[in-house]
Amino acid sequence: MQVFNFCAGPAMLPVEVMQKAQAEMLDWQHQGVSVMEVSHRSAEFIELAHNAETNLRQLLNVPDDYHVLFMHGGGRGQFAAIAMNLLGESGKALYLNSGQWSKAAAVEARRFAQVDELSIVESMEGKQQVVLPELKSDMGDYRYLHYCPNETVDGIEIHEPINSPWPVIADMSSCILSRPIDVSQFGLIYAGAQKNIGPSGLSLVIVKKSLLELPALPMPSIMDYRITAANESMFNTPPTYALYLAANVFQWLQQQGGIEAMGLKNQRKADELYAYIEQSHFYRSGVAATNRSRMNVTFQLADESLNGEFLAQAKARGLLALKGHRAVGGMRASIYNAMPHQGVVALIAFMDEFARNN
Amino acid sequence: MQVFNFCAGPAMLPVEVMQKAQAEMLDWQHQGVSVMEVSHRSAEFIELAHNAETNLRQLLNVPDDYHVLFMHGGGRGQFAAIAMNLLGESGKALYLNSGQWSKAAAVEARRFAQVDELSIVESMEGKQQVVLPELKSDMGDYRYLHYCPNETVDGIEIHEPINSPWPVIADMSSCILSRPIDVSQFGLIYAGAQKNIGPSGLSLVIVKKSLLELPALPMPSIMDYRITAANESMFNTPPTYALYLAANVFQWLQQQGGIEAMGLKNQRKADELYAYIEQSHFYRSGVAATNRSRMNVTFQLADESLNGEFLAQAKARGLLALKGHRAVGGMRASIYNAMPHQGVVALIAFMDEFARNN
Repeated sequence: MQVFNFCAGPAMLPVEVMQKAQAEMLDWQHQGVSVMEVSHRSAEFIELAHNAETNLRQLLNVPDDYHVLFMHGGGRGQFAAIAMNLLGESGKALYLNSGQWSKAAAVEARRFAQVDELSIVESMEGKQQVVLPELKSDMGDYRYLHYCPNETVDGIEIHEPINSPWPVIADMSSCILSRPIDVSQFGLIYAGAQKNIGPSGLSLVIVKKSLLELPALPMPSIMDYRITAANESMFNTPPTYALYLAANVFQWLQQQGGIEAMGLKNQRKADELYAYIEQSHFYRSGVAATNRSRMNVTFQLADESLNGEFLAQAKARGLLALKGHRAVGGMRASIYNAMPHQGVVALIAFMDEFARNN
Repeated sequence: MQVFNFCAGPAMLPVEVMQKAQAEMLDWQHQGVSVMEVSHRSAEFIELAHNAETNLRQLLNVPDDYHVLFMHGGGRGQFAAIAMNLLGESGKALYLNSGQWSKAAAVEARRFAQVDELSIVESMEGKQQVVLPELKSDMGDYRYLHYCPNETVDGIEIHEPINSPWPVIADMSSCILSRPIDVSQFGLIYAGAQKNIGPSGLSLVIVKKSLLELPALPMPSIMDYRITAANESMFNTPPTYALYLAANVFQWLQQQGGIEAMGLKNQRKADELYAYIEQSHFYRSGVAATNRSRMNVTFQLADESLNGEFLAQAKARGLLALKGHRAVGGMRASIYNAMPHQGVVALIAFMDEFARNN
């Protein structure tokens, strides 16, 4: 049975990448050992890490005045690292709250500094919608503005750029590499790896060098952007196997035609799924059309007492991990880069059959 | 050609564990997906994590008043976490300095608190030897004493227990699970995974619950022992694939007869290698017999101009990564749990042949 895995994260990886990893598991580059068994300071591994950075820079067209850092600890680690690295003794920051993850980022930053929060989601006719306020420099002396362009749990995406007088920091954990972005519009972009990059335990940070000129709070060295940059992400042993898989995902993306081609493919997958939901009376989306996530499609059954049956039948058909996050309930189909179009076709076919039978 | 990988870390893993990982790479537990593609909150993964902890507790006979934590960031992350978790606003600690890693731990802790350092290695007749001072409570009001029972870079091991009036914290990165220990003698034991546990990016912490009663410094949540314990190491997404491999390593250790059997096997490997070096005039050990590491056997060629040739010929024979750490030079054979006895036999045979030919 063909299986399609809609898990929000750790998420499915491209099958070609997984097959390559399997083939090389015991013998990487004809060395007779696994890539996870070699020194991160070996010439072979340093070349892998170097290629990973080069390919990522190419994919996202990262300007030269930005560092690309591979770090430990996932997105939550970065919630803390950002505040410790950029706020210093007395810095303040503004956090836009659009759902579960942006809220969690603000909570973590508040451990270290003063954080103002601005809620930007409103409910209109039962649907959640993002309403961006006008941001003016006299609102506060902020070192940065933090937001989450794609809320994995809520299925809310902010499609338009943020017009901000302060450097913009974006948690792109669940939308990185899914569509073209203009890196130069951001002060810092970060992402936990486990959606569109690789396995969990790795995080990616793209940071404008000029943001690191101010002195930082005392912090763990492995979270210090300055130390990480000076040591090319090898101050301590990096999560080498995760980095190897990420490097292969970057190569796979290039083989797919890069981020522009990926963006079109992702748009088509999301459009077809939302179009089906929209015309259905059996399913509904709780997010306004302007803010629907292309990566995490949340939806509800009109009759929620059928949720258990829906999930059980889906699983029996090889459609896995469709249950919504425990904080919001309902259903969620995460359709990251690695999800093929036919996965969405299979999901729609099942949803339609389930609706007709019930 | 049979390959033996003497890398100090990331180090070789048991071949049985790697073969299992390869076989299951695309299909874990008949789910049609990899273990790295499933949610860390799925029943299957929670069971895996639970079994990992249970098996580790059994292997090391961990008392109930200790937490077992699986964390991000490796040993260096713990250098910071220990100080932030245990020293609070004004705590002091004593660090015993026996080589590269214990020194680095003290440097990192000093970012957050006052740290006193005591050098315990002396050179006697050209060999490094550990001389433990008598530790008395009037030496200082220390929250803990930190030491590194096995110095990976220097090849120095401290075999006897530390008699300390303060809770003892041990960096066991390169000796954990290599021989029986009495956990109850320690306040905290920690280890980066990439030597005797699994791939890099994971760390293990075993901490006495009573040490966590004092208030801690503000710190990243993912480094907070209290938060990690309260969330059973799943406050954020753990490095799931690393944890899966660790779980399989723990099972493998049980199949090998547990830590006692492993300790005997390791002792034999080290004894044979040191005995060969001892009787040789071509090679020498720079560490006194009382403090030679059972895991990281450092040695020098009497004629160091032959180093390059030695490494090249070893590599051609499938004996990999014997170069000593750049900080100390010479050679190093890391013979962790996963190194079979025949690897040591092959190394000695090669060393002997090389000596005779030169």
